[in-house]
Amino acid sequence: LKITVISVGKLKEKYWQAALEEYRKRLGRYCRLSLIEVADEKCPEKISPAEQEIVKAKEADRIRGHIPRDSLLVTLEIQGKTRSSEQFASWIDGVPHRGRDHITFLIGGSLGLDSGLCRSSDLALSFSPMTFPHQLMRIILLEQIYRAFRINRNEPYHK
Amino acid sequence: LKITVISVGKLKEKYWQAALEEYRKRLGRYCRLSLIEVADEKCPEKISPAEQEIVKAKEADRIRGHIPRDSLLVTLEIQGKTRSSEQFASWIDGVPHRGRDHITFLIGGSLGLDSGLCRSSDLALSFSPMTFPHQLMRIILLEQIYRAFRINRNEPYHK
Repeated sequence: LKITVISVGKLKEKYWQAALEEYRKRLGRYCRLSLIEVADEKCPEKISPAEQEIVKAKEADRIRGHIPRDSLLVTLEIQGKTRSSEQFASWIDGVPHRGRDHITFLIGGSLGLDSGLCRSSDLALSFSPMTFPHQLMRIILLEQIYRAFRINRNEPYHK
Repeated sequence: LKITVISVGKLKEKYWQAALEEYRKRLGRYCRLSLIEVADEKCPEKISPAEQEIVKAKEADRIRGHIPRDSLLVTLEIQGKTRSSEQFASWIDGVPHRGRDHITFLIGGSLGLDSGLCRSSDLALSFSPMTFPHQLMRIILLEQIYRAFRINRNEPYHK
């Protein structure tokens, strides 16, 4: 299985970088993982709704160029569908049975994802009704994908 | 406001420690924060349900001794109530109006919290139907408390 994660903005903090590296390393045993960062748009504190849409549209343009053609597309959205870890693992497990071998996950920037991108996704996935920092979301996502592989292979995993 | 977070087991990874320190530092402006770690019980990979209950009961005993007497008790439970960040912020904001000035959050170990502890809590709070590593939960919780204070004071916060 190939997994691509496209996210907006550079991971700035050293501790997030180190946590990400740890899960990237662990995932290497289970899939071909590709992590892509696209540049974020400058986003002032006071920004009108119209300007927000422009920021998200520009970020979406950068994201689109990186979405592999034949991949299943999963957008991370606070209003998306919630899944338990077991349900998420089962969904990943089913992807090859649907004749697909590639999943692309999209994580938006500080304003979230462009609505056009969200409409084109195969699964809108919500991790929580709470808002988490988008930088931390990359780690939470990789950890959950790693957990999914462990569940699917019946391998023990200390929570 | 005083906030106590009691969790089970030592934070092992340097990157989690660094992330925790960052949010502890940020929270210093908003509350009197106390982070308490109690020892975890050894937990073998193959463990019967009865043995799991014993592990959780022992950890609960250690936790109980640290719960400040007059604090509101919040247990983190996967089956608890979900809240948006704004709802959680509003709940925290309401605590002083209920004549209370102290909140204690409990995060269980790898098996979760003892059911007796959960029954005695004032709020069972779920961050997600997904299982997250209990070590990462400390950081997710502190970040969300920090976010709550920023929301309640109308201070900007980059997600």
